[in-house]
Formats: sequence, C-alpha cells, structure tokens
Amino acid sequence: MTHFVLGADIGGMNLRVALADSSGQILANQRASIAGVRDPLQVVATIRQIASALLAELSVQPSALRAIGVGAPGVTDADGGIVIATSYLMGWRDVPLRAYLEDAFGIPAAIDNDVNLAALGESRAGAAQSAGDFVFLAIGTGIGAGIVLQRRIHRGSAWRAGEIGYLLVPGVSEDPVDDGDPGPFEAQAGGEGIRRQWLSRWNPERTPLPRDLTATEVFDHARAGDALACEVLHGAARVLSYAIYNLALVLDCPLFVLGGSVGLHPALGEEVRRLLSQRDNRAQPRIVPSALGDHAQLTGAVHLALERASLKEPAAGSRE
Amino acid sequence: MTHFVLGADIGGMNLRVALADSSGQILANQRASIAGVRDPLQVVATIRQIASALLAELSVQPSALRAIGVGAPGVTDADGGIVIATSYLMGWRDVPLRAYLEDAFGIPAAIDNDVNLAALGESRAGAAQSAGDFVFLAIGTGIGAGIVLQRRIHRGSAWRAGEIGYLLVPGVSEDPVDDGDPGPFEAQAGGEGIRRQWLSRWNPERTPLPRDLTATEVFDHARAGDALACEVLHGAARVLSYAIYNLALVLDCPLFVLGGSVGLHPALGEEVRRLLSQRDNRAQPRIVPSALGDHAQLTGAVHLALERASLKEPAAGSRE
Repeated sequence: MTHFVLGADIGGMNLRVALADSSGQILANQRASIAGVRDPLQVVATIRQIASALLAELSVQPSALRAIGVGAPGVTDADGGIVIATSYLMGWRDVPLRAYLEDAFGIPAAIDNDVNLAALGESRAGAAQSAGDFVFLAIGTGIGAGIVLQRRIHRGSAWRAGEIGYLLVPGVSEDPVDDGDPGPFEAQAGGEGIRRQWLSRWNPERTPLPRDLTATEVFDHARAGDALACEVLHGAARVLSYAIYNLALVLDCPLFVLGGSVGLHPALGEEVRRLLSQRDNRAQPRIVPSALGDHAQLTGAVHLALERASLKEPAAGSRE
Repeated sequence: MTHFVLGADIGGMNLRVALADSSGQILANQRASIAGVRDPLQVVATIRQIASALLAELSVQPSALRAIGVGAPGVTDADGGIVIATSYLMGWRDVPLRAYLEDAFGIPAAIDNDVNLAALGESRAGAAQSAGDFVFLAIGTGIGAGIVLQRRIHRGSAWRAGEIGYLLVPGVSEDPVDDGDPGPFEAQAGGEGIRRQWLSRWNPERTPLPRDLTATEVFDHARAGDALACEVLHGAARVLSYAIYNLALVLDCPLFVLGGSVGLHPALGEEVRRLLSQRDNRAQPRIVPSALGDHAQLTGAVHLALERASLKEPAAGSRE
C-alpha cells in the first residue's frame, strides 16, 4: 500500500497545506488566508478542510495518511509539541499544537519553528542536500536563521536558536532595543529595515525614484544603477556579510543558503559574496540561494512528517 | 582490577601529563618544558618518560593503563587522529599524533584540540556539568572557544569551530587582517591585545603606572581604581560582552565559562556581566569562571581517554 503524509506551514497571514508521497514529493498543495485568525483550533480545522480537499482531489484514502508535520511562526518546543510563543499578531502562548493535530487527524504529528523547517527542507530536498553543516537565512520582513549541524537542526536550550535579528556586528546600532522594535541587525538587513533605510536616506536631489519602495524594489533599482539604491543595498549586504563571516568562523560552517523574499534577490547574494571575498580566508563559505524558494517551509514540514512516521530516516551525521 | 588512563596537554612551551583513575580523578601530574621542540615523536617520547615516572610514583602497572587522551595546540581532526596545523612555533602539519601515541603506548589513544578538551573538562568535571549547551572561552595570549552542544563538542566541518579571535563585533577593526597578526577581536580582548591597548594609550599624564604591564596587571590596577586601566578593561569587556551576546543569541546557549589566565581574572567577568545586564532579555546567559583553572585541558584529556576506553560514556544529550 502506498503511504502519504501531510505538511502544513502556518504563516502570520496565510496557511499552506501539502499532500506528499513517501519520497517527500509534493503531489498537491493549497493555500488559505488565516489573517486575523487567532484561535489555534480554528487553524487546525482549516488545515483539516484543506487536507480533505487535497485527498479528494488525488483520490487518496485518509487511511493512507501516515503523519502530519506543521511549521509554526514562533518559538516551538519540537520535543514537547508546544508552540511557546508567536508574535503579537497571532498571540499564541504555550499552545499544544501537536496534540491538537493528533486529535484532529488521528495520525502522528510533529511541529517545529517555520525557519527550522525551511532549513530542514533545504537539507533534505533543496540546496543543502550534500551539506552536513549549514545555515539557512530567512530574510523577509525580518531575519531568522535555521542552523543545521551534522544534518540535525540545532534548536538551542530554550528553542530559540537562530534569532539573529539582534546580532551585533560593526555597522549596527549598539543601543539596547525596546520590545517590539526590530533588532539592530534586521534594522539594517531585513526587508522592513531596508525599506526604512531607503525612506530615511531618500532625497529628490539624490534619486529620481519614488520615496516608497519595498526592499526588493530598492535592490532592482540598485541593479539598474541608481546610486542611492546601491548605497542601501551595500549597507544591508555589509552587515549581512559580517554576520555570515562570524557564523562561518564560530561554527566552521561551509555553506549558507539565502531564502525569504528579500534573501532570494540575486543582487543581495552577489553583493554579500563580493564583500566576503575581500575578507581573509578563515571564513569563506559558499553562499547560495534557496533551491526551494517559497516552498522551503512546506517541504520541510513534509520531511518532518516523513521522519515522524519513520518513512524516511535522517541520514547519519556527515561532514561536507 | 583497577583501571587507569593517561591524559596529556601539549602546549606551545610546556607539556603536562596526568595519571587518573577510572572515575577521572587525577592522581598525579607532572610538567616538562618542550620549548623549542618541534619533532612530534620527541614530544611523544617525553610524554612516555613522564608517564613512566607517574606510574612508578604510584606503583601502577603499565598493564593497568586503558587509554591515553592528548590535547594539541592547533587544528585537530579528532576522528582521523591527525593534528592538521599548529602555530608556526611548533610548525606541525598533518601529524598522525594518535598513531604515534598508540605505537608508543600500545593502548588506544584519542586526540583533540586543547580548547575543545578544556571545554570537555568543564563539561564532565567542572563548571558546566549540568549544562547541555555551553561555550568555554579560553582567554590567554589570544582567544579560542570550545562549543559544547547537547553535551558533545561541536568541531565544525573542517575542525576549526570556535576560532573566535577574528569575530567582527561593534568596536573592533573592520580592516582585513594580515596572516600572523592577531584577529580584530582578540586584538581588543585577548591578553596580548590588552597589553598593546595599554601600551598605546599609556601616557604619564594619565596614569602613574608603568608602561609595561601584562593584561592581568592592567586588570588588577583597574580594580584598584586606576582610570586608564579601567578604560582598557572596559574596552576588552565591551567587545567580549558583544561576542557572548551574539553566541548566546545564535546558539540559544545559556552558559559561558571563562577560562585562561586572562579570562579567569575576576575583574573581567564582573565587567562583562555588568555590560550584558544592560542589554535586552533575548540573551542573558550565565557567565562563570572555569572551575578547573589551568587543569581544564588536562582534565578534558583524561575524560577523552576515559571515553576512548569506554570506561565512562558521555551522558545522553540533555538541555539545561
């Protein structure tokens, strides 16, 4: 009998659910808005509705499902199956999401932080399949990191590893940060930070471009040669290259995968590579774009489900 | 029959050898100068001489020895048993030290980098026995880190993890470093760097103290109230607090152990704790002095030998 698993990625605004076969191949996936939905049981019910639709679409019997893996946008106790905290938008605190999923689906469930799942996706089926150790950098509105050491996610002693938005590198503000404000590092290198950098430097005498641009629009204009956009791109790439240098040095990590809408922009990767190449040889990691793009989390959720169902064992620790 | 193991710590100038029982208790230890000795086989022969003396001293039969663990002052392939590189003073390149030791002693041998062994010592018998994850910071002339995650040393993909002398944090030079020069971080926070900071700021109008002081002498005078010494201490503690903040944040690591002659000075730990407490709550690790002091490496070497001989298994991964 053929086995299947479900993967789901809970975002702040959207939910995505995938049905995959026992090799991890996603056969179908569907998205729904959960903007404004704060009740975790309602999110689980929506996952269930979409899952039923996907099963029907592919004529798969529910009894062929072996497990479900779900990514949550916050601090997640992967062992205990608890979402400890999400941002104020969803406001989850100590939500027993794994138990809710197992109750709703009647199959084994596993959960993890979404950035960790994106890293797992790249490790198992993306840009880092041959890497024992690598770091996935999710650069969207803010910045998070998924750290994989010897093919296993390093989650930290309080499930908070990879919270790099607050890193202190040369060029960021050393002032303590108020709660709710972006960290000093993401204020320079995250999407919202880059948008604000553009806004604060914008001057009609310096650029013909409009005052309101997103981070990726700024990067597009940098590639097209706008000097002010180049300056903002350079500022983001500079602190990002320092952060990558530091992590590569401390962890002796040879590979960094850039993901997220801002991290995937080729101009950022190019400028970071250029700046890193000017430093010494102690840390010269490869920097590659995510191979899975905005499917990284969902793919990781599928592989989490496969490992939960023991349909696919993680490979033994290896060195790249 | 009672079993014993040997531990040895090869430094740039000195060699230390210990005889320990199967609980890891060091029964006797002895030191010898190896200044100017570059031949690894001569170092192994010296270890053997000292070991024979220790066995005789305690009336232990050589046949009761089960394993030897040795720390080397450089990049070490712990799996392959090879010292890949040491500083120019010893000039070792790809030395099969484990094979040399097994040939000389006829018992199983294991080797590792000396800072990793200090971390192992603190983990098994020192200040970090209850910690799943912690970082040992060895601050002497330069700076190195031993990273323990889930009670195992993280060695990195090329055996170079923890080379933090080159970290880039606010306050250090961003200029690329020439080979042989100290890294930008240790230039501020390492013993030699602190000595040079004192020298470059020294001015008879600013201090009655002499121009030539070691780092720990500067710290002593800072505690006694000398303003210039306080300034130099503050500069070292500032970049050190940033490095600890960054590592605690990225790894979600709750404990840092300060070791090495400079790291053990109470003035440094106090100032680092004070500066860290002024930052946000995202990373507030405990900072404690090494419990083993200058026996950390040797104790780690003994525990490496015990684990090699399977006399003492490392505890399963746990979270603090």
